[in-house]
Amino acid sequence: MKKINSNPINVWALCLFFLFHFPANADKGYKLWLQYAPIADAVQREAYLEFFNQISVVGNSATHEVIRKELRLAFSGFFPNNAVPEIGDLESGNIWIGRSDVLPASVKESLGSRLSHLAGDGYMLSVYEGRVIISSKTDVGLLYGTFALLKAVQKREPLATLEILDNPRIATRMLNHWDNLNRTVERGYAGFSIWNWHRLPKHIDQQYIDYARANASIGINATSITNVNANALVLTPVYLEKAAALADAFRPYGIRIFLTARFNAPMQVGGLETADPLDPAVREWWKEKANEIYSFIPDFGGFLVKADSEGQPGPHNYGRTQADGANALAEALAPHGGLVMWRAFVYSEDTPTDRTKQAFDEFKPLDGKFNDNVIVQVKNGPLDFQPREPFHPLFGAMPETPLMMEFQITKEYLGQDTHWVNLASMWEETLQADTFAKGKGSTVSRVLDGTLHGYKHTAIAGVANIGTDRNWTGHPMAQADWYSFGRLAWNPEADIREIAEDWLKMTFTNDPSFVDPVVDVMIKSHAILVDYMTPLGLHHIMARSHHWGPGPWVTGGRRDDWTATYYHRASEDGIGFDRTEAGSNALEQYAPEVRDQWRNPDTISLDYLLWFHRVAWDKPLATGNTLWEEMALRYQRGVEGARWMKQTWLAQEGRIDEDRFEHVRSFLAIQVDEAEWWRDACLLYFQQFAQQPLPSGVEAPKYDLEYYQQFRRFFVPGI
Amino acid sequence: MKKINSNPINVWALCLFFLFHFPANADKGYKLWLQYAPIADAVQREAYLEFFNQISVVGNSATHEVIRKELRLAFSGFFPNNAVPEIGDLESGNIWIGRSDVLPASVKESLGSRLSHLAGDGYMLSVYEGRVIISSKTDVGLLYGTFALLKAVQKREPLATLEILDNPRIATRMLNHWDNLNRTVERGYAGFSIWNWHRLPKHIDQQYIDYARANASIGINATSITNVNANALVLTPVYLEKAAALADAFRPYGIRIFLTARFNAPMQVGGLETADPLDPAVREWWKEKANEIYSFIPDFGGFLVKADSEGQPGPHNYGRTQADGANALAEALAPHGGLVMWRAFVYSEDTPTDRTKQAFDEFKPLDGKFNDNVIVQVKNGPLDFQPREPFHPLFGAMPETPLMMEFQITKEYLGQDTHWVNLASMWEETLQADTFAKGKGSTVSRVLDGTLHGYKHTAIAGVANIGTDRNWTGHPMAQADWYSFGRLAWNPEADIREIAEDWLKMTFTNDPSFVDPVVDVMIKSHAILVDYMTPLGLHHIMARSHHWGPGPWVTGGRRDDWTATYYHRASEDGIGFDRTEAGSNALEQYAPEVRDQWRNPDTISLDYLLWFHRVAWDKPLATGNTLWEEMALRYQRGVEGARWMKQTWLAQEGRIDEDRFEHVRSFLAIQVDEAEWWRDACLLYFQQFAQQPLPSGVEAPKYDLEYYQQFRRFFVPGI
Repeated sequence: MKKINSNPINVWALCLFFLFHFPANADKGYKLWLQYAPIADAVQREAYLEFFNQISVVGNSATHEVIRKELRLAFSGFFPNNAVPEIGDLESGNIWIGRSDVLPASVKESLGSRLSHLAGDGYMLSVYEGRVIISSKTDVGLLYGTFALLKAVQKREPLATLEILDNPRIATRMLNHWDNLNRTVERGYAGFSIWNWHRLPKHIDQQYIDYARANASIGINATSITNVNANALVLTPVYLEKAAALADAFRPYGIRIFLTARFNAPMQVGGLETADPLDPAVREWWKEKANEIYSFIPDFGGFLVKADSEGQPGPHNYGRTQADGANALAEALAPHGGLVMWRAFVYSEDTPTDRTKQAFDEFKPLDGKFNDNVIVQVKNGPLDFQPREPFHPLFGAMPETPLMMEFQITKEYLGQDTHWVNLASMWEETLQADTFAKGKGSTVSRVLDGTLHGYKHTAIAGVANIGTDRNWTGHPMAQADWYSFGRLAWNPEADIREIAEDWLKMTFTNDPSFVDPVVDVMIKSHAILVDYMTPLGLHHIMARSHHWGPGPWVTGGRRDDWTATYYHRASEDGIGFDRTEAGSNALEQYAPEVRDQWRNPDTISLDYLLWFHRVAWDKPLATGNTLWEEMALRYQRGVEGARWMKQTWLAQEGRIDEDRFEHVRSFLAIQVDEAEWWRDACLLYFQQFAQQPLPSGVEAPKYDLEYYQQFRRFFVPGI
Repeated sequence: MKKINSNPINVWALCLFFLFHFPANADKGYKLWLQYAPIADAVQREAYLEFFNQISVVGNSATHEVIRKELRLAFSGFFPNNAVPEIGDLESGNIWIGRSDVLPASVKESLGSRLSHLAGDGYMLSVYEGRVIISSKTDVGLLYGTFALLKAVQKREPLATLEILDNPRIATRMLNHWDNLNRTVERGYAGFSIWNWHRLPKHIDQQYIDYARANASIGINATSITNVNANALVLTPVYLEKAAALADAFRPYGIRIFLTARFNAPMQVGGLETADPLDPAVREWWKEKANEIYSFIPDFGGFLVKADSEGQPGPHNYGRTQADGANALAEALAPHGGLVMWRAFVYSEDTPTDRTKQAFDEFKPLDGKFNDNVIVQVKNGPLDFQPREPFHPLFGAMPETPLMMEFQITKEYLGQDTHWVNLASMWEETLQADTFAKGKGSTVSRVLDGTLHGYKHTAIAGVANIGTDRNWTGHPMAQADWYSFGRLAWNPEADIREIAEDWLKMTFTNDPSFVDPVVDVMIKSHAILVDYMTPLGLHHIMARSHHWGPGPWVTGGRRDDWTATYYHRASEDGIGFDRTEAGSNALEQYAPEVRDQWRNPDTISLDYLLWFHRVAWDKPLATGNTLWEEMALRYQRGVEGARWMKQTWLAQEGRIDEDRFEHVRSFLAIQVDEAEWWRDACLLYFQQFAQQPLPSGVEAPKYDLEYYQQFRRFFVPGI
């Protein structure tokens, strides 16, 4: 001791040295963006301690308890060498957390009109007489405000000048888990379902709590825990008891549970002979079922339903409309305040002339025919989560029916677990798209937040990318997609570069020599992936069934619209799906302003060209290249982009922990290989029709087309 | 800073305070028994630092690099406030690690004859002139010695008096993973397979490395990574490349990879029309396959084969013997030094009079007919991993054929993931059983270590309990079974109480107020479980298929010997399977001394009574109770034992981290419930035949028999 104490500064230096050199298996991946890393700078640390050494949390709900627990956890992370102080419930805290109805009169007066702007679970952070005041109308809003405070500290922002008032723009911000009861996850690439049904209800794993913490920290307040390709067993008491245990665990974090309802559950688990939504016995069954569910889960959110799609039963089986189907369930939930989220991803059993038109054709005529507590859940684009799609034409087209967004956070069509692509860019493109439903400025985000049509309910869903992998999402960088989804769900207008920066700082480090180049990679990653997978509006050219890797040659089989050739229609004459008046006329589903923008192959963005147009290989484009040249050059550009991502990452060695650095490094090596695989396979295939050499600058494929076509894949995850 | 520096002692006190108060999500479960917790006591810390501040590792193999890495990791754990020193390769270290062939002459001389006792990967730790010398004949032995050193520090043992010379008694110490290529794990209850085949070979997850570290730390040196119910695809190049990547990752840790070989692979992936082991084309196919495998994995261990059992193809399909089958594969591996591990768990397609007799009947006549590089892998008991079985009669019966042990670490029949039962007790009972093959003292452990029959090869396998669960094994306490298996594989005579103590100290804390009562629970846990599941030698009375929970009523179906009634044969006359001369005479497979001990129902241990005897309900036992009374009282005693385990655990609150405390607590609540379930269901069922009331002291069942019989279970893990 003596020798060391003789120089206390060095003791501290050593302490700090180690705080930043965790052993390899410290498992930072698991902690997501809630690392609460030690504050290294002594002056900063003292400044934060001024606030954190006296915290008041006023109130005694389960959510208040959760706030205290989070503050203690964060304190021990930020200040590992200080004893965690008692968290008081007096008014004397330097950080004071309490609902607006218990604010001291003097504070209330000082905050004045700003308090009146609080809405829903919105919160405010304000500095009053040197103290940080966190307030909200609700307990959960206080938790959100607490996470905002902790984010500021994680970003090393000064607290003394903190001024935030932030209300959620969308009421229900939700994850959709496509998790099966046997723990496989449809289109899940991060292992298996984190719901261990067998151990429920008696064992509540710490991971469930950490899941709730992570979600609450980004404002997610709802979760549908079972696959939309549903198993009716989840509606039986043995599973309801388990779901109720999860609901109990999530409740203090402001998260409500939804279940997927299999449309023919009245037959499968109810013993009825029909599931006809207009049959009185069926309606009665759903009512009793709803009563039963609410007896287990008093704040049950409602049902998420996939009907009449990909083999799922639905109202079509009985000659009924989607509204008939949805309303039968809605009627049962209404007395309890539950919602039906009815997916618009409906398509007929027969191959249509253009699958992208079906949801609009089916739902648009039903506008206004849904019960009050039904929301129609629409995917971002009209096909199915392709790397790039134009926005879905239903947005803006159903003023009388609340529509919600379904984004896919898991990367079914975007390289699955091993490709790094920041999905926020793709989502922003959709959210900012202008539907022109009520003239210019009628963006998709204004449809979703309800301001365009005055929707009674607003909601947004993301298909989760969460699994049993130690870091939750498989790719360490895919955590950003979960995070970004939450941020955009709270505020669809949020700046995606700021989101990426926040996430990097909280998850890795505030070091700008790391953050700046890596943000750049994140922001460009989506364009890069589209280039090496599906440039120029190409879509649905992936391998069959598991959707991993290129498959532009996929043809034949049960349904034409499950093939690649149905969509790209490549021949010697050209390539692309004509969706103009001369073709399927899907364009007519959009507003005239949009139609005018897209109907001309010379003015439409090249990003959507082949989605809407059939184009000759030799057609000269605005870039000065022919279509074939442009396609080949974009594939090449994509590969080079992936290589640039890898190089940029390699330069980060030593700036973050070895474990995550190495994980991303190895995945980037796979990404570069697979980018080349996509480029080579697609160009070789399309070259058969284009019958032209690769333009200069495009690398020759390593193998011949046959090589790429003969792969047989086994046990690809997610199916 | 100033205020804090004014009292440096407090700084340290605070440091230490926090080192022992990790945040809830620090994920100690993942670190297993390699926690390397900070050394709190200042005097101790200084004493250890004397050694650790100067470490020499002499040599430059990949294993030496791994040793250095482990030492650095351990150092930063033990001494979080000290900078990790450079690890030199000079002779000047206070800890000196180097092979015996590079020991300085003076040290060699001083260690003298003790050095000559080193064998295989054995190691020695010795103090010479105040320095700890770790030496071995092999690089891997140095790694084992390093782990022994780190164990001593974890147990806070003084280094200055350290003297260890430890050679492994069994050459191949191996895990068997029953992991399928789709990542499900047969009889796995800790999630799914940790092998992410899809990401291999390019992504080597940190978990693979930590798996290798954990295994090396307990001397495990081989792993068979695929299910014995085998998929021949794993023998094709696309999977061999993946397996090779794992082998590369494991090699520095001294771990060799084995693969399971599906017997009809020559047909399934080879395109042949037969898999007849005597067919020259088949033999040639296996030779070429072996050559191919060794081109991927130069130190490939060999094949593990399940043939002619539970639907797996085998030599019986061609009228050949098990020796014919094994030898065909052995011949292919021999030029490369590979082994065939051929499972004795063979049984006919037709229900036999007594299934427990079949392996002996099949294999005993083949003694001496197996090639030199074949080992026959025999389960601990003659049936199938029941909570308690007598030792397998093959042990001691095949002097000319190396036999290896197959223990089941995963708890297929012992409550699966949620029951805490320390399997070392069960294994010790088998290892210490006397076969009398060469007179008294011919224990099973002496069969296994080769000393009894002079086996050329010695080996032991454990069916792994490892999965994707964050803590590897599901139940936090099931980590002890992995650990104990490794320790007993190294030395089958090791003291199981000492093993349990070591594990608890390394995994949780050295605090005797925790260790002492918890060791007690561990040591008694197996007897408790047998009491509430299968007392008095009952066996195979679990539920059908998934094997979870009681099912004494299971009867009918495809095979009689997959039912409970086949084994317990309960009627009004009595209960039990007569395996004496009057019955199936399975007893004749044992040596005369064993037979004499077990043939008399009045002298056989009550623990095996109903395994070998059919007994009337009213028969008075040595305990003074009738059979019925004794059975009921044992079930009751088991339930009370489970409650005692739970109470003992609850008293540990605050002595360890909250996360693991809470996890074990919730599982013990399940265990108590399920112990009652077993007791109530079994006693109600057997009472139908005994036709007597429950004796005094036995609690009345909560429900009637029908209640227990009508359960339908869905998605039980592990199948």
